[in-house]
Amino acid sequence: MYSTAIKDNFYQYIQKLQDTITNSIEAIDGKAKFHQDLWDRPEGGGGRTRIIENGNVIEKGGVNISSVHGKLPESMQKYFGVTDANFYACGLSLVLHPINPMAPTVHANWRYFEMYDQKGNIVDRWFGGGQDLTPYYLFEEDATHFHNICKTACDKHDATFYNTYKAKCDDYFWNTHRDEARGIGGIFFDYCKITDKMSMQNWLDFVTEIGDSFLNSYTPILEKRKHMPYTDDQKKWQEIRRGRYVEFNLVHDKGTLFGLKTNGRIESILMSLPPKVQWVYNFEPKADSEEQKLINILKQPKQWATL
Amino acid sequence: MYSTAIKDNFYQYIQKLQDTITNSIEAIDGKAKFHQDLWDRPEGGGGRTRIIENGNVIEKGGVNISSVHGKLPESMQKYFGVTDANFYACGLSLVLHPINPMAPTVHANWRYFEMYDQKGNIVDRWFGGGQDLTPYYLFEEDATHFHNICKTACDKHDATFYNTYKAKCDDYFWNTHRDEARGIGGIFFDYCKITDKMSMQNWLDFVTEIGDSFLNSYTPILEKRKHMPYTDDQKKWQEIRRGRYVEFNLVHDKGTLFGLKTNGRIESILMSLPPKVQWVYNFEPKADSEEQKLINILKQPKQWATL
Repeated sequence: MYSTAIKDNFYQYIQKLQDTITNSIEAIDGKAKFHQDLWDRPEGGGGRTRIIENGNVIEKGGVNISSVHGKLPESMQKYFGVTDANFYACGLSLVLHPINPMAPTVHANWRYFEMYDQKGNIVDRWFGGGQDLTPYYLFEEDATHFHNICKTACDKHDATFYNTYKAKCDDYFWNTHRDEARGIGGIFFDYCKITDKMSMQNWLDFVTEIGDSFLNSYTPILEKRKHMPYTDDQKKWQEIRRGRYVEFNLVHDKGTLFGLKTNGRIESILMSLPPKVQWVYNFEPKADSEEQKLINILKQPKQWATL
Repeated sequence: MYSTAIKDNFYQYIQKLQDTITNSIEAIDGKAKFHQDLWDRPEGGGGRTRIIENGNVIEKGGVNISSVHGKLPESMQKYFGVTDANFYACGLSLVLHPINPMAPTVHANWRYFEMYDQKGNIVDRWFGGGQDLTPYYLFEEDATHFHNICKTACDKHDATFYNTYKAKCDDYFWNTHRDEARGIGGIFFDYCKITDKMSMQNWLDFVTEIGDSFLNSYTPILEKRKHMPYTDDQKKWQEIRRGRYVEFNLVHDKGTLFGLKTNGRIESILMSLPPKVQWVYNFEPKADSEEQKLINILKQPKQWATL
């Protein structure tokens, strides 16, 4: 048998990280508590979904972990070009939608995947994940702060990672049919496998470094924006922009679609959808407005890190 | 050259029908007027989008026609298994989202498609379309009325049409990942081509009969429900159910996805999305409530026509 050290360590890590993150968000919110749902996957494994709603600061959010295993679903066998494979996957996924339109939505996901042949030998394994920010009003200092934290964490492991994963993030979160980015990006990495430079232990160290950096990347922004004054029109703008978030997740996001089409736990998958959303026909911000300034940035992703 | 009578007649028909429907809906609303946008398709043709928002009765709706032609987009060539084909397509699409949660959302679409070889010969052509109702509270008399009108129109052309197209509708508007219907159905037909019994003229007569029946199928229901009293909780339920409508249209609806992936006019395609929508984690109605009664029906489509 192969060593289960990587998978065991990573699963322990995300369990602890879920606690750390939910405790921190509850402290910032000051009112709402996460509600926990434990669920089982009939085919093997399960998850711990934690949802927060109607807080002082967070309108809706989820910080979920899952650890699932069994026969690789047929659609995934096709996708990976394998037959008769088994798998193990675990990960932490989070999305936080603040009430205040001056505070950005954040998404993060860190995950590990193993694939086995019929004898139980590992035939492939990799890490993936990332985090990205979706502001409704652009504060350049926030974008820079978020990217600088991502870059600092990446740089400890490889000087090329940040630029590579920043570009992948801009690429992945592109809302094709709107011809604009979902947000101002962050980092996105996938299929992180053994190379000359990186052992699986090195990748584990990298991914946990990124996970550890998450709260520093987001909570100072949330603290700064959570009580800023805003108007009804600014709230409406946030709800319209949340519509773009829904469009991305339901039309383009591979993880969401995969979950929906393979009988995943729907309410855990769709916890990513914002609480209140508007679709207004052909809404266009005024020229030179703060709203238009955001659109301009989303049409043309830029470099934010200053380190 | 082939005769253009069918396509010309149908396009004239939908132009007039758009006027008839928008006039009737404006009269029922009593406040809001449709706003018209004419648009050109760079590759050939264009459309006339008419949107109504923030009325007395209609919260948001669109009644759109388009008439487009040119080289068949590559994704459609693949879909139909042809190469180097040209096409012509025209149709009317409508969605109306009333304010009052007691009034159902309605969707309808009637369309005609021709495909040509490089010499300009028609190689294939067909009609398609249908209409379906999405209530938030179930009034059985409304469901029966809607289906009876559909059945009466179908029965004038073929005694088997209603049952066939009712079943196709239930099948098409199935929200797989929720394991429930989008609404209480109606009729849905596609690839209506020449048969022993039906010439293209017969199909034209059928589709225009269905189109003519639309206002009778929906407006009596809208009139009956538009001023019914409702609570904040009932409005919230409507907004949550509208979330399922968004999920269906963005995840499963072939027409919407085709439009988004082939560079259609986004704002005309997404006019179908409801104005205000909520996603509440794991919302479950009380047992024996009116809300649960709706869910039960959506899980198990039934026969509504009584004629």
